[in-house]
Amino acid sequence: MASVDLNADLGEGFGAYSMGDDAAMLGVVTSANVACGLHAGDPDIMARTFAVARERGVTVGAHPGFPDLAGFGRRRLPFSAAEIERLVAYQVGAAAALAAYAGHRITYVKAHGALANLACEERPVADAVARAVKAVNPGLALLAIALSEQVPAAEAAGLEAVQEVYADRGYDESGQLILRGTAGALIDDPEAAADRALAMVTEGAIVTVSGVRLPTKIRSICVHGDSDHAVTMARTVRLKFEAAGVTLAAFRP
Amino acid sequence: MASVDLNADLGEGFGAYSMGDDAAMLGVVTSANVACGLHAGDPDIMARTFAVARERGVTVGAHPGFPDLAGFGRRRLPFSAAEIERLVAYQVGAAAALAAYAGHRITYVKAHGALANLACEERPVADAVARAVKAVNPGLALLAIALSEQVPAAEAAGLEAVQEVYADRGYDESGQLILRGTAGALIDDPEAAADRALAMVTEGAIVTVSGVRLPTKIRSICVHGDSDHAVTMARTVRLKFEAAGVTLAAFRP
Amino acid sequence: MASVDLNADLGEGFGAYSMGDDAAMLGVVTSANVACGLHAGDPDIMARTFAVARERGVTVGAHPGFPDLAGFGRRRLPFSAAEIERLVAYQVGAAAALAAYAGHRITYVKAHGALANLACEERPVADAVARAVKAVNPGLALLAIALSEQVPAAEAAGLEAVQEVYADRGYDESGQLILRGTAGALIDDPEAAADRALAMVTEGAIVTVSGVRLPTKIRSICVHGDSDHAVTMARTVRLKFEAAGVTLAAFRP
Amino acid sequence: MASVDLNADLGEGFGAYSMGDDAAMLGVVTSANVACGLHAGDPDIMARTFAVARERGVTVGAHPGFPDLAGFGRRRLPFSAAEIERLVAYQVGAAAALAAYAGHRITYVKAHGALANLACEERPVADAVARAVKAVNPGLALLAIALSEQVPAAEAAGLEAVQEVYADRGYDESGQLILRGTAGALIDDPEAAADRALAMVTEGAIVTVSGVRLPTKIRSICVHGDSDHAVTMARTVRLKFEAAGVTLAAFRP
Repeated sequence: MASVDLNADLGEGFGAYSMGDDAAMLGVVTSANVACGLHAGDPDIMARTFAVARERGVTVGAHPGFPDLAGFGRRRLPFSAAEIERLVAYQVGAAAALAAYAGHRITYVKAHGALANLACEERPVADAVARAVKAVNPGLALLAIALSEQVPAAEAAGLEAVQEVYADRGYDESGQLILRGTAGALIDDPEAAADRALAMVTEGAIVTVSGVRLPTKIRSICVHGDSDHAVTMARTVRLKFEAAGVTLAAFRP
Repeated sequence: MASVDLNADLGEGFGAYSMGDDAAMLGVVTSANVACGLHAGDPDIMARTFAVARERGVTVGAHPGFPDLAGFGRRRLPFSAAEIERLVAYQVGAAAALAAYAGHRITYVKAHGALANLACEERPVADAVARAVKAVNPGLALLAIALSEQVPAAEAAGLEAVQEVYADRGYDESGQLILRGTAGALIDDPEAAADRALAMVTEGAIVTVSGVRLPTKIRSICVHGDSDHAVTMARTVRLKFEAAGVTLAAFRP
Repeated sequence: MASVDLNADLGEGFGAYSMGDDAAMLGVVTSANVACGLHAGDPDIMARTFAVARERGVTVGAHPGFPDLAGFGRRRLPFSAAEIERLVAYQVGAAAALAAYAGHRITYVKAHGALANLACEERPVADAVARAVKAVNPGLALLAIALSEQVPAAEAAGLEAVQEVYADRGYDESGQLILRGTAGALIDDPEAAADRALAMVTEGAIVTVSGVRLPTKIRSICVHGDSDHAVTMARTVRLKFEAAGVTLAAFRP
Repeated sequence: MASVDLNADLGEGFGAYSMGDDAAMLGVVTSANVACGLHAGDPDIMARTFAVARERGVTVGAHPGFPDLAGFGRRRLPFSAAEIERLVAYQVGAAAALAAYAGHRITYVKAHGALANLACEERPVADAVARAVKAVNPGLALLAIALSEQVPAAEAAGLEAVQEVYADRGYDESGQLILRGTAGALIDDPEAAADRALAMVTEGAIVTVSGVRLPTKIRSICVHGDSDHAVTMARTVRLKFEAAGVTLAAFRP
């Protein structure tokens, strides 16, 4: 494999509040998942993030989440699948508009936080996200956690599904993310995380916590964007990949 | 003149809160200005309003306002023109997406409340609204209060400007709305309001509080949508126009 | 028994949105549970509700709920017991302050909607509510759904627990409310509801859907406040009780 | 003069968002103005800030602002004086409750941002703030910008007014703060700011940008709490005062 995408959640500030170092991250990643104003982000931050991404040649996607600024979209809120459809459509439309306003264009959607977790586990939620994206623009790709319910849901809706793995998160034997707070959930060392990510991409397989290889079509690596450590992690992944001759390029250039 | 549009602000509930009788109004008006979630409305209400409008053959537009649910968008908030651009783009995009989700399509934008008032009086605000609409979709029309700064701003941006008058609001000698709370600001009697609206449309002129005619290309009549009285007013206007042989038809059918 | 309290949730509007007919209800009930701004209500509505209650001689309590205006506090949000403590303390303090501002004084707390349901079923949540109330003012009573976990939790915290029954909700054989949407959950007919409420008070027992009597110290009857039907229901209960010689009086006059 | 208070705005995070280094600042200041959840802060952050302040022996006050999280309370919102009264009462009550919950006690109120600016310039707004504080608890002091309308307003309401100066803000010849963005508005150098603050306290006078002394009873120095630079500034002021033999002590110990 010659090329893989590197994505991060960006534009996650709100008003006077900042989250992570977007300017630094936009110099490292190839795709930026931009928060849409309900769990993080606001119209000014969205427009600025899209504008800087355009300048830096970074591909952009909408990153919808639950309407939960206080919980940063990390709480599983009891919304029905039909309500989730409307919440996702709303946010994707808003992001598409602000990208256009900033001279850029969203080409994919990635669900955020608790919404993504639910969409990974529950097919009706995954279907709701996919249907919403399709209704707004069937040409958008869905950036999905590898081996999750999001993949068949996107395909059933006729959307392109792009599978991603997390650079610093552990995987169990079924290929699912190990829950935060459990042993093996996080790989703190950037070098170790980057080595494993490179192995996953070059071998075309998820590498589980016990070293098993689960063959998977991995097209993107997700790195976090919300801390100083995140920038170091992202840069380490980029350098390691480039040194190994793997090109970092957006899946929707 | 054989035809005119009849518009109202709809979809102005929020969660468990309702505002006006949308079902009744959608049987009377030809164009519905749908709130976009920041001063009123939410994704579920937006989707439902667009769906019912489609069923009833009612044209729909985005109705963006200030992000002020507590103030229902009626307070003049100190946002810069640049911030207003982003706020309007955000809301127009969200509305376009939910209309598509509901099988309908927005064809115009009308500013709400305090945002509309500012856009009538201050050209930079009017320009901000027009630029935002153009950035999202230059094919959208701008439904503008007649003789306001919104009209030249829309035209300068290359947007179609559609001028409206209010069925129940008084006009001063310069063609501006008389401030609420001032004598002559409101015409409470539906018959009197409908008669004056009919006169304005058939004569092609704003009729001021003193009876002066200000020639104006009036393409839409605005009726309120937020009270029981509003339904009576809207129905009276419709009946009076139909009786006079004036067809009620959306300006963007 | 010579006397019982009649309570309703009031002050549930928000900004331009209204909910129920507070003015009418304040002429019927003896205690008003006033929303605290997070699931409904705002500082202006709170102050007005407290002021009118004072004029009408109606006792007032704080009615805290989940911070969920969009869901009207009816969704079970995933907050920890510790987070619930802080949310309740915040709201009780705000309500106490606005009552003082309006020349009135809160004397009790009643949890709202999904928060109340959780506090009925889960002792840790009930304890959290009780601890928060005690921390703010140990002299406040806790108005609790009869036979629920709220009662022992309040007593364990050293608070006075006042048990209430719902005039129009069905009870199962364990004395719990029958879930909405299930047969027997609601008694729509005001006469039937009032007759049953009177039976419960005079017999000192919850009357289940099958007619069984569960002896319970009932000190308050709850009627809904959020519809026109609600006013009729409340008035019917009041008239029926007065005709039977049962005095309606606040439990904290 | 042997003693002066050192205050800062703290608890200004929201959910996952942080603002400034509260832990460090609580080791430097003698009084903490704690945000009340409407322009910044949330119940968890409030409780934590009060708890740590108690541990560190730091006096606490409520720091109410406009309900404008997106604008961090820095925008002048068009609220009436009566609305401001209710907004302030609400926030002071919520803060008092969470302080009690955390085992602490608020002893004063200081208005935040745009609300403070308005209260400095417009007597009706200053009166509204003072009336709200008095209604909730007439024993609370009002921490007021020196020589502003807040001082006579507090005194007219029978509240103790405590005058503060800003360590790093320039003053014009009338004793008013020089507007941000104007030459002389800010003193960036911590040493220079601390020297001037010390001069003001020891001389009992506001030192204007041109060096004029305006005799003023200064009882507190305000330092910012929202940046890394802020911690340096606060520590420099503390060290300089201690070296000069001026005791730093809360005005309400």
